[in-house]
Amino acid sequence: MNMRTDVPLTPDRCEVECLHPEHVRPLLGRLISARDTESLSATFALLADPTRCRILHALALARELCVCDLALLVGISQSAMSHQLRILRAEDVVTRRRAGRVVYYRLADAHVRHVFRDALRHTRERGAARAAS
Amino acid sequence: MNMRTDVPLTPDRCEVECLHPEHVRPLLGRLISARDTESLSATFALLADPTRCRILHALALARELCVCDLALLVGISQSAMSHQLRILRAEDVVTRRRAGRVVYYRLADAHVRHVFRDALRHTRERGAARAAS
Repeated sequence: MNMRTDVPLTPDRCEVECLHPEHVRPLLGRLISARDTESLSATFALLADPTRCRILHALALARELCVCDLALLVGISQSAMSHQLRILRAEDVVTRRRAGRVVYYRLADAHVRHVFRDALRHTRERGAARAAS
Repeated sequence: MNMRTDVPLTPDRCEVECLHPEHVRPLLGRLISARDTESLSATFALLADPTRCRILHALALARELCVCDLALLVGISQSAMSHQLRILRAEDVVTRRRAGRVVYYRLADAHVRHVFRDALRHTRERGAARAAS
């Protein structure tokens, strides 16, 4: 280990140079690519919106919902709902199907469902833990 | 159904007023609260950053890593890494432990691990589908 005395010691950083080649070597070349990183962070950015979170929660509770029912549940206009659904569909977060004159939306796949479910569980458990402390 | 003729018909909206009480009623009162919505979208906003995505991917691959090893893997300075880890820890996305003079970080819980894993799978499958089409 190389001691460094020029770096202020805070609890957020190691106090010494502590590169562990045995930890780092197996991970080299396996880290997410720049392209996947951009795409992933863009997906998270899309989800980082309260209205879209409510839409996705409604779709996580139901198998599928039509635009009108979604608008009613989330409490926004049908026009605003159509706008949000267009954004979510462009990024493959939701899909739609037509049945006669009605358009139904659902979460695009199990991954989207799981992302939403686990993020919500994390949020709720974190809220409960903070309330208890 | 109430026909509406004043609304332009686009594939993104139902062509008729189509509220299905039988779909909506079971969901009333079950939709995510305003507080949870804010907290959830804030968590997604935190993840919507390429550098933080790379940090979380490194921690998803390894059980835990020290600040120095993380900085090396992600390719940022130890100081920048400490800054990002402080932000992630403040929102309970990562936790840390001290072992002597070294500080190790890991993903906070299984939910965070699953959110990241499923979001990455969605991103990669989506990329593959788009490349194939």
